[in-house]
Amino acid sequence: MANNKKLVEAITSMEEDFAQWYTDVVKKADLIDYTSVKGCMVIKPAGYAIWENIQHELDRRFKETGVENVYLPMFIPESLLQKEKDHVEGFAPEVAWVTHGGLEPLQERLCVRPTSETLFCDFYAKEIQSHRDLPKVYNQWCSVVRWEKTTRPFLRSREFLWQEGHTAHATAEEAEERTIQMLNIYADFCEQVLAMPVVKGKKTDKEKFAGAESTYTIEALMHDGKALQSGTSHNFGDGFAKAFGIQYTDKENKLQYVHQTSWGMTTRLIGAIIMVHGDNSGLVLPPRIAPVQAVVIPIQQKKEGVLDNAYKLQAQLKAAGIRVKTDDTDKSPGFKFAEQEMRGIPVRIECGPKDMEANQAVVVRRDTREKITVSLDNLAEEVQKILDTMQVEMLERARAHREAHTYTATDYEEFKSIVEEKPGFVKAMWCGCKECEDKIKDDVQATSRCMPFEQETLSDKCVVCGKPAKKMVYWGRAY
Amino acid sequence: MANNKKLVEAITSMEEDFAQWYTDVVKKADLIDYTSVKGCMVIKPAGYAIWENIQHELDRRFKETGVENVYLPMFIPESLLQKEKDHVEGFAPEVAWVTHGGLEPLQERLCVRPTSETLFCDFYAKEIQSHRDLPKVYNQWCSVVRWEKTTRPFLRSREFLWQEGHTAHATAEEAEERTIQMLNIYADFCEQVLAMPVVKGKKTDKEKFAGAESTYTIEALMHDGKALQSGTSHNFGDGFAKAFGIQYTDKENKLQYVHQTSWGMTTRLIGAIIMVHGDNSGLVLPPRIAPVQAVVIPIQQKKEGVLDNAYKLQAQLKAAGIRVKTDDTDKSPGFKFAEQEMRGIPVRIECGPKDMEANQAVVVRRDTREKITVSLDNLAEEVQKILDTMQVEMLERARAHREAHTYTATDYEEFKSIVEEKPGFVKAMWCGCKECEDKIKDDVQATSRCMPFEQETLSDKCVVCGKPAKKMVYWGRAY
Repeated sequence: MANNKKLVEAITSMEEDFAQWYTDVVKKADLIDYTSVKGCMVIKPAGYAIWENIQHELDRRFKETGVENVYLPMFIPESLLQKEKDHVEGFAPEVAWVTHGGLEPLQERLCVRPTSETLFCDFYAKEIQSHRDLPKVYNQWCSVVRWEKTTRPFLRSREFLWQEGHTAHATAEEAEERTIQMLNIYADFCEQVLAMPVVKGKKTDKEKFAGAESTYTIEALMHDGKALQSGTSHNFGDGFAKAFGIQYTDKENKLQYVHQTSWGMTTRLIGAIIMVHGDNSGLVLPPRIAPVQAVVIPIQQKKEGVLDNAYKLQAQLKAAGIRVKTDDTDKSPGFKFAEQEMRGIPVRIECGPKDMEANQAVVVRRDTREKITVSLDNLAEEVQKILDTMQVEMLERARAHREAHTYTATDYEEFKSIVEEKPGFVKAMWCGCKECEDKIKDDVQATSRCMPFEQETLSDKCVVCGKPAKKMVYWGRAY
Repeated sequence: MANNKKLVEAITSMEEDFAQWYTDVVKKADLIDYTSVKGCMVIKPAGYAIWENIQHELDRRFKETGVENVYLPMFIPESLLQKEKDHVEGFAPEVAWVTHGGLEPLQERLCVRPTSETLFCDFYAKEIQSHRDLPKVYNQWCSVVRWEKTTRPFLRSREFLWQEGHTAHATAEEAEERTIQMLNIYADFCEQVLAMPVVKGKKTDKEKFAGAESTYTIEALMHDGKALQSGTSHNFGDGFAKAFGIQYTDKENKLQYVHQTSWGMTTRLIGAIIMVHGDNSGLVLPPRIAPVQAVVIPIQQKKEGVLDNAYKLQAQLKAAGIRVKTDDTDKSPGFKFAEQEMRGIPVRIECGPKDMEANQAVVVRRDTREKITVSLDNLAEEVQKILDTMQVEMLERARAHREAHTYTATDYEEFKSIVEEKPGFVKAMWCGCKECEDKIKDDVQATSRCMPFEQETLSDKCVVCGKPAKKMVYWGRAY
């Protein structure tokens, strides 16, 4: 296979060049391919299957809280995009414009949705009349387009896949509650399924979403110490409702504006998985999100009974609900091991004639390379235990990494030197002024990642200007 | 609720105005809403949930045959679209063109994909080098855009949702086999899940897909006697492979062109379900595709114990795997019945104080209105039986309707009068010439729907020109 030759070439080590390591893994784990469409990628089967698992897990969690899925058009008329002033300012510079339909110029330009607040508002304005029509808790799975100048697979591409939830509520309290509820679902999903710890908090005004009253975020720390915004949940208050005239009659028959939220997660999460768990042999997938959780690799497979035994083990594991494949190709075992490692399959199960004689198999964990000899009598049970342990330990390891790379600064010189020399999160106090955020950005290219829900008082002064501090903030360089 | 007022207004009867009946059902069963984007619709929760079930059922069937899902860009550079001559001629007049990204004009226009053959070919040209890279059996779920002049919800809209499978094979035989395999999956899905019988056959050259060597189709008959093309599967031979240079080295190390197929099904199927099964009270959903299969409607729900009993029945049905809801709103039972009928929920389960005393409930089928008194001791089992029977009988009824509206003509005057006076399929012999197809189109606005796999010899002469007949064709007016 043409791909094999590429695979055995070593990937760049992450210590040498993290960005190149990332690009190598993305390509050699066969997640994506580049296309003739600049800034857009093909998500290949191994990558798309991860997205399908993300979709499946999130969608189930959404529906348990009453979310219903819908589908809105991919086009937004220019006049609609312009209805909410902050929103259009945020997005207009980076949208793709359709100007012709068939052979004719359009009367009004349409942009390809960069996000669908305006369409949902247009829809809700017609749909909502009475308090009995509330709440609306809708979500859609779709692709969106943002005309980015520099792009990187999964992290920043001109088109990406996501879900966008858009809700409308009778009261401000209910909207706030939904905003936080969805952030909590995101955080729980990241920790429990992706084995990726996150910091939950609120964005500063400078960093919040265009048109939002408040934006909440979950921030994860990548292996190189850079932060990645992994999901956001916005409370719009009644700003969009006023711009679009979304009103309902309450129980006293008075006209009221609705309160709205939106929240989204994207294929960016796949980039996060790579950068939180990957190593110099390639991808490492947490078992709960891995499309293939175990691969059976027969040793000396030409010997009688070895392949049949491999298929038997595969059948046993499959029956126990483990996502499993057998690599029965004519590649060498060593090559198959390297491929399993590159693709991040959580465990491989080696079984040759000697193992068969001893009624055993060797299970090798992708993350620690630990080799565990397991009796064939309870293989499925043992493999499931190993997968469960691996899931837990991957989260613990990622959390330990984040904690080891979370620093505290109470002095601006110290702050700057940490950002420059020790990649990670820096916790520091802040006065609440945009000027101090701007100064940090100018000086060391770090941004406020969030004002965490779990506040600490590190000092009573802003780390930049020394004025009274209002909030403790996580700062960092970010993707 | 604002919607209720609209609901109780009777919908237009299908005998009076079928097109208006269709539009009424689509709106009042709450499947879609119109938008500010001309020709595009919002698919609302009740509509989208049907699509999710279609996706789920089809995707499972695809994967059982080795299909893998991927995602390709939504944009196609103009130069790429133009590589295959017939294909671009077919699609260029009806695509949407992106000419600006952000504030800048693009160097090359991009069209929003109307279908993705050209993108898959571009991808495969890089991906496929050796016979060991074959076959590629990829599919994507996405939306596509065709700039139609006149649009109707689900049946013809500027943007619609679909799946498009694109495969590449070493041999012509294997490609043909896959083409037919997918057509059979489509036909089986329509009959078993949608309770919609279809005629399987091949399109004439005039009706085949732009760029295909042969197009296979499944054709269904709607209640008004018009045909609806419900799924197509195309064999491209090596035409696209030659245009895009998709070659592999075979086992003898010789360069060969691949053979390709594509196949798709769309949200159009929701239109088909409406027009095959619906009646003058609204939608009728086959149980296997219905998002809600049963609704429990408590009678005299303010009486003690009635609501609790309804929830108990709901829990029993849910535990048995039936998709069930309870309508515990303060609407009248009569209104709830009308709503269940409008939304096409397969059965309603009425249970009031007298029923409780008698340890029974009344199950009412949506399709026949049959009322079946069932003991509460085995409610779930009985409801499941009723749903199963309903599924079978809906298919039988649709088949009987199709058979009653399938005619035979051996004489052209007879042929024309059938098309004009008896809406349905007309089977007639054909010489194989485009001129005869054109004449039929001009004379009575009917088209060749397909050359069915099950051929019959009705006469030895073409029904139009009297020359020797080559094929028996299903003709009809179509959506």
